[in-house]
This record gives sequence, structure tokens and C-alpha cells, in this order.
Amino acid sequence: MKLWQKDKGSLKEVEKFTIGRDPEFDIVLAPFDVLGSMAHASMLKEIGLLTSEELDTLLKGLREIYFEIEKGQFKIEEGVEDVHSQVEFLLTQRYGDVGKKLHSGRSRNDQVLVDLKLFYRSAIRDLVEASEELFGLLLELSEKHKGELMPGYTHTQLAMPSSFGLWFGSFAESLSEDMELIFAAYKLSNKNPLGSAAGYGSSFPLNRTMTTTLLGFEDLHHNVINAQNSRGKTEKTLAFALSGLAGTLNRLAADVCIFMNQHFGFITFPDELTTGSSIMPHKKNPDVFELIRAKTNQIQAIPQEVSLLLANLTTGYHRDLQLLKESIFPGIESLLDCIDMTILMLKEVRIKKDILKDPFYKHVFSVEVVNDLVLTGMPFRDAYKKVGLDIEKGDFQPDQEKVNHSHEGSIGNLCNKEIKSKMEKSIAQFEFQKTADSLIKLIQG
Amino acid sequence: MKLWQKDKGSLKEVEKFTIGRDPEFDIVLAPFDVLGSMAHASMLKEIGLLTSEELDTLLKGLREIYFEIEKGQFKIEEGVEDVHSQVEFLLTQRYGDVGKKLHSGRSRNDQVLVDLKLFYRSAIRDLVEASEELFGLLLELSEKHKGELMPGYTHTQLAMPSSFGLWFGSFAESLSEDMELIFAAYKLSNKNPLGSAAGYGSSFPLNRTMTTTLLGFEDLHHNVINAQNSRGKTEKTLAFALSGLAGTLNRLAADVCIFMNQHFGFITFPDELTTGSSIMPHKKNPDVFELIRAKTNQIQAIPQEVSLLLANLTTGYHRDLQLLKESIFPGIESLLDCIDMTILMLKEVRIKKDILKDPFYKHVFSVEVVNDLVLTGMPFRDAYKKVGLDIEKGDFQPDQEKVNHSHEGSIGNLCNKEIKSKMEKSIAQFEFQKTADSLIKLIQG
Amino acid sequence: MKLWQKDKGSLKEVEKFTIGRDPEFDIVLAPFDVLGSMAHASMLKEIGLLTSEELDTLLKGLREIYFEIEKGQFKIEEGVEDVHSQVEFLLTQRYGDVGKKLHSGRSRNDQVLVDLKLFYRSAIRDLVEASEELFGLLLELSEKHKGELMPGYTHTQLAMPSSFGLWFGSFAESLSEDMELIFAAYKLSNKNPLGSAAGYGSSFPLNRTMTTTLLGFEDLHHNVINAQNSRGKTEKTLAFALSGLAGTLNRLAADVCIFMNQHFGFITFPDELTTGSSIMPHKKNPDVFELIRAKTNQIQAIPQEVSLLLANLTTGYHRDLQLLKESIFPGIESLLDCIDMTILMLKEVRIKKDILKDPFYKHVFSVEVVNDLVLTGMPFRDAYKKVGLDIEKGDFQPDQEKVNHSHEGSIGNLCNKEIKSKMEKSIAQFEFQKTADSLIKLIQG
Amino acid sequence: MKLWQKDKGSLKEVEKFTIGRDPEFDIVLAPFDVLGSMAHASMLKEIGLLTSEELDTLLKGLREIYFEIEKGQFKIEEGVEDVHSQVEFLLTQRYGDVGKKLHSGRSRNDQVLVDLKLFYRSAIRDLVEASEELFGLLLELSEKHKGELMPGYTHTQLAMPSSFGLWFGSFAESLSEDMELIFAAYKLSNKNPLGSAAGYGSSFPLNRTMTTTLLGFEDLHHNVINAQNSRGKTEKTLAFALSGLAGTLNRLAADVCIFMNQHFGFITFPDELTTGSSIMPHKKNPDVFELIRAKTNQIQAIPQEVSLLLANLTTGYHRDLQLLKESIFPGIESLLDCIDMTILMLKEVRIKKDILKDPFYKHVFSVEVVNDLVLTGMPFRDAYKKVGLDIEKGDFQPDQEKVNHSHEGSIGNLCNKEIKSKMEKSIAQFEFQKTADSLIKLIQG
Repeated sequence: MKLWQKDKGSLKEVEKFTIGRDPEFDIVLAPFDVLGSMAHASMLKEIGLLTSEELDTLLKGLREIYFEIEKGQFKIEEGVEDVHSQVEFLLTQRYGDVGKKLHSGRSRNDQVLVDLKLFYRSAIRDLVEASEELFGLLLELSEKHKGELMPGYTHTQLAMPSSFGLWFGSFAESLSEDMELIFAAYKLSNKNPLGSAAGYGSSFPLNRTMTTTLLGFEDLHHNVINAQNSRGKTEKTLAFALSGLAGTLNRLAADVCIFMNQHFGFITFPDELTTGSSIMPHKKNPDVFELIRAKTNQIQAIPQEVSLLLANLTTGYHRDLQLLKESIFPGIESLLDCIDMTILMLKEVRIKKDILKDPFYKHVFSVEVVNDLVLTGMPFRDAYKKVGLDIEKGDFQPDQEKVNHSHEGSIGNLCNKEIKSKMEKSIAQFEFQKTADSLIKLIQG
Repeated sequence: MKLWQKDKGSLKEVEKFTIGRDPEFDIVLAPFDVLGSMAHASMLKEIGLLTSEELDTLLKGLREIYFEIEKGQFKIEEGVEDVHSQVEFLLTQRYGDVGKKLHSGRSRNDQVLVDLKLFYRSAIRDLVEASEELFGLLLELSEKHKGELMPGYTHTQLAMPSSFGLWFGSFAESLSEDMELIFAAYKLSNKNPLGSAAGYGSSFPLNRTMTTTLLGFEDLHHNVINAQNSRGKTEKTLAFALSGLAGTLNRLAADVCIFMNQHFGFITFPDELTTGSSIMPHKKNPDVFELIRAKTNQIQAIPQEVSLLLANLTTGYHRDLQLLKESIFPGIESLLDCIDMTILMLKEVRIKKDILKDPFYKHVFSVEVVNDLVLTGMPFRDAYKKVGLDIEKGDFQPDQEKVNHSHEGSIGNLCNKEIKSKMEKSIAQFEFQKTADSLIKLIQG
Repeated sequence: MKLWQKDKGSLKEVEKFTIGRDPEFDIVLAPFDVLGSMAHASMLKEIGLLTSEELDTLLKGLREIYFEIEKGQFKIEEGVEDVHSQVEFLLTQRYGDVGKKLHSGRSRNDQVLVDLKLFYRSAIRDLVEASEELFGLLLELSEKHKGELMPGYTHTQLAMPSSFGLWFGSFAESLSEDMELIFAAYKLSNKNPLGSAAGYGSSFPLNRTMTTTLLGFEDLHHNVINAQNSRGKTEKTLAFALSGLAGTLNRLAADVCIFMNQHFGFITFPDELTTGSSIMPHKKNPDVFELIRAKTNQIQAIPQEVSLLLANLTTGYHRDLQLLKESIFPGIESLLDCIDMTILMLKEVRIKKDILKDPFYKHVFSVEVVNDLVLTGMPFRDAYKKVGLDIEKGDFQPDQEKVNHSHEGSIGNLCNKEIKSKMEKSIAQFEFQKTADSLIKLIQG
Repeated sequence: MKLWQKDKGSLKEVEKFTIGRDPEFDIVLAPFDVLGSMAHASMLKEIGLLTSEELDTLLKGLREIYFEIEKGQFKIEEGVEDVHSQVEFLLTQRYGDVGKKLHSGRSRNDQVLVDLKLFYRSAIRDLVEASEELFGLLLELSEKHKGELMPGYTHTQLAMPSSFGLWFGSFAESLSEDMELIFAAYKLSNKNPLGSAAGYGSSFPLNRTMTTTLLGFEDLHHNVINAQNSRGKTEKTLAFALSGLAGTLNRLAADVCIFMNQHFGFITFPDELTTGSSIMPHKKNPDVFELIRAKTNQIQAIPQEVSLLLANLTTGYHRDLQLLKESIFPGIESLLDCIDMTILMLKEVRIKKDILKDPFYKHVFSVEVVNDLVLTGMPFRDAYKKVGLDIEKGDFQPDQEKVNHSHEGSIGNLCNKEIKSKMEKSIAQFEFQKTADSLIKLIQG
């Protein structure tokens, strides 16, 4: 039974095709749908469309459903169209006609939109917290291994001395910078669309500022067409944020896959974290990082899928937008998985020591030696020529034990403290607690 | 002649292939290259690698070149590899060996990186200012036409009353929200990579904090590997920002193309802004908006091109990164063109009046009438049924002259003032003036 | 229990992450895995690695499993790694150690590859047959409505007379041309990779020509590295083929969505195929076609996802390739759904008659009138000027009832017979029956 | 001056924006435009719209222009809109009013379309011929180095013995298979759109079969809407073909970049083909292959750009389609460059000999040894266990000098002859000569 039901029901095939994968996504949206309804109901009372008693009943019923969802007791029953209908159905079943009053002054469009925004806010918080954990681990590894040198490559060619401290730390700082795109997605998710109805507003005297406050939104999409057009745009921005973070993990995974190759042999993992062959004991397949590399590429393809879905569409809701969930929801989950697996693996990473002491690597010190000569007063061109000649004659014997890099962000001065404070500052701007407080207040009444 | 020149020069074909389109992009980077060198030189003096006299000479020479670039008198001479070599060549030619000292403590890698960051900062400022102008025009049109109703569509079907005020205003607010992605790109562009050398730092005691301040960067990429890895990541983030803004223009253009169709006929432009046919006077081809639609799609493809270039690359510079300029530089220019053309067109847009008075549109008022009945006390389901029956019997005669929408962001309450303040707040966070002041100080000494 | 099992099993989280969605895809591959094993076993006997009795036992066991799969009685048991292990496990359980001999001379890599190739061949046949059905319907509609004129648009502006016969027929011919990309994907799928082992061949004297014949492959990937590298490349080519066909459906869906808009009103569907609102009886939402439009866009994004997964990967198997199934398998299913739904909808499409008789459309006849004058002998420029002036004066009164287009492929000469024969020729080249015959022979012995 | 000129000219900015990069592409199209006009004129005479004398004059004039283009003497003059206008202008200037008769019965739309199809056919021939040259070189290298073993990798881990013969040969066979996608693009390009006018046909009794024959097209797009809709679809299919071929080069380049890394050191090139540093003599940067890797990624992004341009567009010409040239024309050129540079480099490639004799690689022989034991009669599981134990005890001492692979496509049996014949068969189906003969006949009369 649907609100827009015509005399003749839709053909079964049409129904199946149009519903698609919504049931699996709707379960994810359920708690947010209830929260949105609590705020909407409170506002309807404020503008006189519900009595105090009706509101109390509705809030009571909605709270019950919220806790049922929390406990995993909620499901969309056979024959019920979607999560919104299920909630309304339960309210009506339990508390009578008042349940039907909930839908006044809103449309399915702004109801779904507000559910999505609330879910995205919550998912972003998960992403940020997972990133924070990975960040902490990377910094820890950077500090732990700051004395271990390794070669640095340019053009995939041996180039200069580097260190594990530098390498781990680079991903930590990268994560801290990824927070900016995520914050851009958060800001767009943190704007209230409720009250935009089908995208053209309502003739009811809604109080959108009130629902904005109740749901802990930072602001509202004022213009109602813009609110509706934020469907798709929010997902696109979120896809960018996912893709940004995925890019950092992709590079880390690509490095690990090559560093585990036997020619390099820089890092390894315990057997239970790799796959291999009892007949090829030298083989430790980096399957987890190959899959992280691949999954982060899938995630980096999401922006394009979203852009294609939206390309050339005119203003106003189109059913096409329903499919955005199929791009974004699994993308968020996959990225969380990738972060978790990266943490699980890196906790056990083992580092090869004393790599650069091997004469194989001596040429990576050539620039060091030139610079040392320059610092003793020899003109750069002369120093450069001298070292070149030494190398040519086979007389080049650098000290392969240490490098003397002291400037900000270099081997001897990793600036991990500054990087940590950068991350903290980035995360602080989300003000997650403020939003959480609003929702707690809404739920607890 | 190149610094890394071997005895045997590269094959001519190799040279041509590897240089590619760099000369055309290098001209764009020239002023930023000079600024970067001024800061670098000042720092070298500070750490004792240049004398005061040498620094004065270099700054004098660099300023001369800066002003030659400004006046269009700078070019990369035949046989000179790139802009960096040309600047060094000019300095050496004019002031002798001191010119060769400029390259101490930096690598071509961090030199290009800092040039790019400075250019992106500047290009972003251009984009923001162009957006601001378009934003202002859209708000103006929204205010001017706030009384003109038009139909709103969902599923490309006539749905509800809307207005030109709402329609124009929606794009204004959308632009204000696009600033967040642009700001994320700006923050990443506004970090100093100088001093990261080839991506693994330097054994010279560089003072990276000093160049950060001199160049007006908000912060530095501390970790030198991360600084180098920001090549590509910065372009990707910028591509996202361009794509975000492009999405707003794409939708506007798609709307205009359909609204200019003769079945709709909602908006039109003077003859000199359209193309047509003298034999089909009804035909006003919206070529400009078709091309904006197409160009914004090209721009929305850039993220994918950038992601492909970076996919699965390991840490460290790869020559692949050179091609990022081919994606981004023309993308910025194309987006600026699209904004400019949208402004040029919208300044002359003509609106059809009294659209909704036509009985053809009467059904878009059905929800209004239901809501009016509800506000008089009739239960929603009853009102809904009554209007449905009236429509069926042909008795539905709504007032097609006005709608009574009063809530935030609706036809009668556009919230353009709030939207304006949102935009101002978004732009303020860029703090463009602060950066500009640093650069002016650097140039003027 | 796995063949490569080390003393210490993998961590549960690692196992879950690396297996991913394979179980759901493995069920799809099961019958093809059995077919591949039957061919492989037959070949092993030929080269002396199995006795006749062993072969008979294995073929008997494999046939049993094949028919269990057909009847839906096959499943991958808890704790069994994948479909390949399950088949081997069943054989061993039922027939003893001979089951373990099946894996000689092949690797998991070429086993999966041959399964995939066989599945893709089969899926392509499904796609071609579905396309053929849609093609037939489109031609039928084209013939049925060949006398019904409608306007043709350029720049989304009314331009020239067109007809429903022309419009339906255009998609039929487009489908016939889409077969070429599908055939390219088929040719690549129709090459035998079996015997390439892990991508570097085997020291067993395998007879790859024999398995090629038994499995009905047109040819083999000769070079074993190339065979392995065809993983990914086959999926990419298939993604292109899906995208090509999707493009045709996307355009059809876009047309339908706009033609159902009330301003056009050219086509409509029975209520049970659309969604609507009892309060807005004018509203018939084209949800099915909006979703086809969106799904075909998702499909058009697959090439990019596949390209990203493969970008910059070196020769040899990488675990990344496992995720290709997540792009392709659902893509095939979604495209089949889109074709089926297009058929279901178009079977019920209703056409508006006599559209062009409305004076609103008279200008679309202007070029007709000019051409008529030219055919009577008047120079083109004069005719053009005369009609232009008539229009300007309001004297333009064309015959809006018929057009006289007679050349190949025009309104009066649709060439549907030629288009039909083009499609038949395209499909004939697949030689599906030949392949089917080989497989039947293999199964029946 | 334009055919569709209205009283008021377009604004200069509008003109600049709408013309875009067309002038640079139009020069490429010029010879094909003339060929199309020669066929069109011949047909107009056939159907009585031109006299024999008029046709003779036009053909004479068009031939003159054709040879001027060949000699590089043709240019689009200031103020002339495009190549089509320039040709018409020259004809009229030289031969009077007959020049104006050329445009009867065609529209700018089908004129551009036929130009593009002819150009694409020609460009595809260039691509196929370049591929053929590279193919020949790869086969030659495969034969030359068939005795040189190298390790084969899976999961970027040392796995099995491979050989340079196998590695080079794999790319040869891959190229031969890439021809299928190119052939699909060729078939779509090889269909005549002329006579479709603006996409809805013409009331003139055109003879489209005649122009099909004259221009050497294999067939025509019969349905005129489909002919117009092939704009974009042809480019998309061509983009797929480019992407397919690019994928093969991308993998080759990725392999080279890693094989040139000092840890591998498998291949090298003369100094003049690499870049390096006199101070790091071990460093030979593979810039050319890094750029091929990157350029082939740019090319692999083209399908997405084209798909975005076309997404959700309705039937009929849209100005958006003009921008397809910006994706495709440079893409073709870039791919030709990449093939040429790959040839130039591989002609000088130097191979490291006796790689596998190094004890470092002994484990890659473990599977060989197991198989050898199996061939002597030992059960697989026992052989496997024995070798595993030998390895564990340090008793594993395989013969590292040769492998005994004899089956089709393996180290000892490369099947290069079969691969060669596969390529020849693929190329034969294009029937380039047949098309060339038609055009020669048209030009020579």
C-alpha cells in the first residue's frame, strides 16, 4: 500500500525493478529516519499542526522504534514499501491515526534527503575516527623507526637516503591533509534540507530553523531548490572525500607491495597475515595490500560514476538519484575496511635493518657528499665535479651509516609533533560532540 | 645545456617527447618561479650559503625578471630547457656566477612544486572572484524576478509551483556551497613544499619555516616525502574543486537548454547571443549553454584522468606527474571561461511572465489546495481525497496567480540575505589579502 | 584447508577480507569450472598423466556435479575456500584420490581464467539474444508507426519533421551496430587460456590445442604471459561492449523521459507501468526509464573502474584482479535487466497521433517547402529567401499532413528490411551454435 | 558571413567561445571535406540537381583544392567560419555561383559527420600500420632473445622461470588481439552518414547508396536519426579502441620502469635514450617509458570524458558534440606518438643475460623440480612434499640453466609463427586497399 497508490497497482516486475537494492540501504537509514521524524514532529507541534498530546505520543512511539533499531529488532515487513512506510505503519498500528499526521508538511523527497544527510554525518565521523587511529599508529611507527635508513627513489630509481621514520610519517601527514576534503563533505552533509518538500517548498508555515537546531545541523540549505539539488551534490562531494583518503592508502599499499618483493625485501609480515606457498618459501604474497590497492581504486572510481549519474540532469528530483546509494554506501564501508586492514597489518609490520650499509646502495649518498664539501666551503660545481670523478674512478666511499639532515620534516627532524597537532586541529573543526549532543537531547527528550 | 647533461645528448626525438607541452605551461609558471627563487635566496643568505651582497644581487636580478614577465617581455629561448633554466641563465648572463648559486639546497622537484602551489593559489583566487561575480548576478536576478512564478518539475513532470526567484537563487546558494571544495583545494595548495628537494630532504641546514613565511603560505608540508607526494594529490583535490563548481554550471546550462525549447519557452536571449536560422524563426539555438554543458562535463572528467595518472604509483617522483599540468591548466581556464560566459548570457536573460496563469498548469496547484484545506482544519487524508475527486470531476479551479509560501527558503521568503552572508563567510576564510600582502612584500623587498 | 596452507593459518580477518564477495560469484562460475575440468582431465589422459580408468571416473564425477549445479543442488560448503576446492573436494569424497590428480598441470590462475572466459561467452550470448528481442520489437514498432509524424529536434529546438517509424527504427539500427563491440569482447573471451598455469606455462607436455577444441574455443591465447595478461583485458573489453549497448538504451530512456513530459506528451504508458499521484492526475512519472537512464550510466562507468584497477600494473597475476568480478558480473546482470525492462515497457507504449497537424509545429516544415520550390526549378537561395519572407509576413502555411521523403533511411523509406539483415549478419558471426555443440559433446561424452 | 546569418551578428565573445578549437581541427578535416563534397556533387548530378557541366566544374575546383591541401597551401582565411565555408568560398570565388549549389541536399551536420568518418578511417589505418611495425619488432625481439631466461612474477613476487622471448612475445600477441576493438571502431567509422542532413533526412531524392560506393564505405547508416546519433557513438567506440591499445603499451611501460630499477636491472638503454645524473652513474631514469605510462593513462581516460559528454543527451544534434574532437583528435596523435617512441626505444633495448643462474633465483625452479619428479612417476603430493623438505633443509639445488617447457606458447615453443598469422588475419579484415582504391578513383576521376 503506497500513499500515491492508483487503482491499478504497478506491475510486479516494475515494482522489483524500481525498488532495487533499497531495502538493504533502508535498514542503514532507519535510525536516521526516526531522528528526522522526531524533529519534524516537534516542529509540527510548534506551528500548530499537532497538539502537545499528539506530539508526546509520536515522540514516545518514535523513541520505541529507535531503540528497537538499536537492538536489531527492526525490520521492513513484507509488502511494506520502504523504511519510511514501515515507521509510519508501526506508529499507526501502535498509536492509531496520529501516526498518519506525521507526514504533513514534508515530502518523501526531503525526508530521504534528511535521512541521508544524517547518515553521511555519522559515516564521516566513523571515517575520521578510523583515520585518527591509523594516523596514531603511523606516527608511532615513524617514531619507533626514525633511526632506520632506507633508500629513497625517484623515477623508481635509487636516488637518495630516506628512512622508515620519514616513510611512515609521510602517510600520517597525508592523512591529516585528507581531512580537509572530508570536512568539505561534512559541511555539505551538515546542512538541513528538511522543509524543502519535493524541492519547491510548502505552503505550510514550516519552521525550518527549528528542525535545523533540533537535528544539530550547522546550517540549513536555505533555498529549497538548492536543498533538493544537494541530492547528488552531497554524494559527489563525499565521493571526492572518499577518493582523497583512498589515494593515500593506495600509495601506501603500492609501496608495501613493492617493498615486499624479494629484490627489495624492506618489510615483511608474519605468516598469518600473508598468503604463500610451502614450496616457494621465499614467497609471501601481499594479498591484503594488493586488495587494498584494488579497493582504493574502486573507491577512486566512484566520483566518475556519480558524475555520470548527474550529468546533464535538469533541476528537480529524478528517480536516477536513488542509485547514488549504490555508489556511496558500499564505498564508505569498503574504505572503512581498507583503513581497518591497514591498521591490522601495520601493527605487525617488520622492518629490515641496516639496509643502506650494503655497498649496493653507496651511490645514494653522492649528493650528501657533495653537500658536505659545499658546507666546508668548496664551490658547488667543483664539489659536484670531484664527486663525479671519484665515482668514475671507483674511489667513492661514503659513510653509509648516517645522514645529517636537520631541517624541518627531514630524516633527522621529522616534525611528528607538528604533524600531530595539525591532525588534531583538522579534526577539531568537525565539532562532532556538538552534533552528538543535539541528537542525544532529541532522543532523550 | 642541462645540469644533468651527460656526455652524449639525448636523442632529438626523446627530447621532443619528454618536453611535450611544458613550454606553454612554463610561461604561466614564470612569475611564480621567480617568487619562489626570491624566497629561496633570502633563506640561503640566512643560513650562510649566500652573502648579503650575493643576495642583494640575486634579488635585484629576480625583480627585474619578474617585471619583464609582467610586461610580457619574458620568453624561454631556443635551446633552453625550461623556465627554471631560463631564469638561471638570465641571472648568470647579467650578474655572473652568483646566478649559479641559487640552486643550492633545492632540487628541480621542489622548485616545480612550489611554482605549482603558488600558481594554484593564484588561479583559485581567480575562480573565487569569478564565482563571486556570478553569485552576485544570480542573487540580483533572484530578487528582480522573485514575483514571477514558473512550474517546478520532478521526474521531468510538472509538479508544483516554483518561481524564477527560487530558480536563480538556487544556483547562487549552490555556488556559495561550492566554495568549500575550493577551500579544501586552497588549503592543500597553500602549504610550502620548498626544502623537500627531490622528496627526501637535504643535508643543508635549510630554514623551511622562513620560506613559508616569505611566500605567504599558511603552513608547510612538514614531512618531505609527503611534500613530494602532494604533487598529484594537490592536482586531484583541485580537480575535485573544479568538478564541483562545474556541476553547478552544468545543471544551470541543462535547465536553460530545456527552458529555451519552444514547448517550454520560459527564457530567451537576444539574437546576438544565440544562433539560429532565418528560415526557422522559432529556432534560437542555445549554443553557448550547450557548450557550457559540454565543457563542464569535460571538467568533470578531469578527476578521473588525474586518478588514472596516479593509480598504483609508488612513493617518490615519477615523470608521469609532469602530465598533470595538461589536465589541470586547461581545466582552470575552461572553467573560468564557462563562468564568464554564464555571466555574459545571464545579464541579458529575458523571462516569460505569467506562465502559471495558463490553465495548462492548473494541476501544479493541487498540493497547495490540499494544504490550504488542512490549514482550515480538515484532516489531511480527507482534504487529499476531496481535491482528487474535484480533479476527476473537472471541478478543480485553483487560484493560479499566487502561492502563499512563507517558510525559510521558499517562494515567498527566499532568504537571499542569508545566502549572501553565507557566501561572504565562505570567501572570508581564504584570507586572500594576507597572502597577497606577503607576496607584495617579497617583490618590493 | 588450502593447497598452499602454511603451518599457521591466516588470521580470520585476513581471510574474510581476501575472500570478499567471491562466494556469490563462484556459484555463477560453478558450471564453467566443471566444464573446464572435464576438458583438462581429458587432455591429461591424452598426455599420459591419467589412465583411461581415472579419466572415466573423473568425467563421471564431474558430470554428476554439473547436473547438480543445473538443478540448484550445488553449494560451497562452510570452510571450503572456493568453487574449485569444492569441486575437488566432492570428487575426492566420492571417488577417492583420483580427485586430487585433476589439478596436475594447471594452476588456480588458468583455472579461474578459463572459467571466466566460458562464463563471459555464455553471458554475451544472453546479451545478444536479449538485444535481438528488443531489436525485433523496435522494428515492429517502427513499421507499425511508420505513418505517424512527430517533430525532430536539433539543439533541443524544434527543427524538422520526423516520425515515430524513424525514431523507433533508429534504436533498432543502433543495436545492430552495438553488436560489433560485443563481438570484439566475444572474440577475446573465446580464446583458451588453459595451460598457461600461473602465467608462465608448465614443464608438463600439455596439449593446449586439445582443450581449445574440447571447450569450443575459436583459438587459444598462444603466449602464456599474454594468456594471463588477458585477465583484466577481457573484462575491460567486455566493459566497453556493455557501455556501448548501454549508451543506446541511455539515449532511448532520455528521449522517453522528455517525450512523457506534459509539454511534449508524445508517448505514454498504462498506469501499472508508471508511478504517479492520485492528486496530480497529469503526472505519470517515468520511473522505469529514469532508472534505465541511471543504470546505463552506472554501466558506462564500469570501463573507468576497470581501467583504474589495471592502471600501471606490471605483468603477472596480482590479487587486484579478483575485484574485476565486482565490476563486471553485476554490470552484465544490470544490462540484461535494462533490456528486459525496455522490452516490457515498449510493448505497451502508446503514441500520440497527428502531432504535427497542430499549427504550433508549422515551422518545422520550412525546409520542406524550400526544397519543394527548388525541385520545381527555383534556385535554392531564392527559394530560401521567399520562404523566409513568407514566414516573416505570417503567410507561411505549409501542408502539415505529410512529408515526401523517399531516400534510403528517411521517413518514407525506412530500410527496415536492410537493417534487419544487418542485424542478422552481425549475429551470425558469433557462431553460437558451434560453441554450444562442443560443450554439449563434452558434457554428454 | 554565415548561411544562417541573422541581421544582427553574434557577439564577438559568443563567436570566440562557440568556435573554440575548431580551426585547428578543421585543417585536419580539410582533405576529407573535399572528398565528401566530390561524392556529394557527383550524386547531385545523378539525381538531376546539377548539370554535367556544373559537376565537371565543381570536381575540377574540388580537385584543385584537394591538391592545395596536400601541398600545405590551404588555410582557413580570417573571418571565414570553418573549413566547409572556406571550401565553398574558394569554389565560388574561382568558379562563380555553381559553388553555392554544392550545399543542396545536405546539412552542416551530415557534412561534418562524413568528414569525421573519413578522417577516423584514415587515422585508424595509421594506428594499425604503426601497431604492425611495433608488432614486427616485438616478434623479432622475442625470437632473438628466446633463449634468455628471466624470472616470472606473481603478486610482484618471484614465482617461476620466464624468458625474454616469452615477455616480448606476450606484447606482440596482445597487439594482435587489440586489433579487434580497433576493427569494431573501424566498422562504425566505415558507414556512410551522408544524406542524413540534420538528422531527419531530406525531401530531395538523394541517392545515398551512390555516395556510399564513391567514398568506399562498407555500408551506410540507413536510418537517418541513427546516422546522426552515430556522432558521439563513433567517437566513443574509437575511444575504447584507443584505450585498448593504450592498455597494452601501459603494461609494457610499467614493466620497463620496474625492470630498469637497479634491484632488477634486467634491461637497459643507451644513454641518449634515458636521462640521468653525472653524479649518480647508477641512475638511468626511464623518462620515456614513464611518459608512455602516463600518456596511455590519459588515453584510457578518454572513454570516460566521451561518456560524460553524451550522458543523458536526447536524440538529435547538440552543440555539445563539437567538443568530442577535443577528446579524440589529440588522443589519436598521442597514441601514435607512444607507439613510435616504444619502437624507437625497443630498437635499442639491451638485455641482461644469464639472470636466472644467480642462486638468488633458485626457488623459482621449485615447481619445475616437482613436475620433473611427477613425470618420473612420483605422485604429485609426494613430490611436492619432498621438494618442500629439501628447500627447508637447504638441500634444494635445481638446474638453473634451462627449463624444459614444450607446450604451445611456452618458453620452449613460443608459437610466434601462429601469432604472426593471427595478426595478419586481423589486419586483413580491414581491407584498407579497397577503401583506398575508391578514394583514388574519386580523386582521379
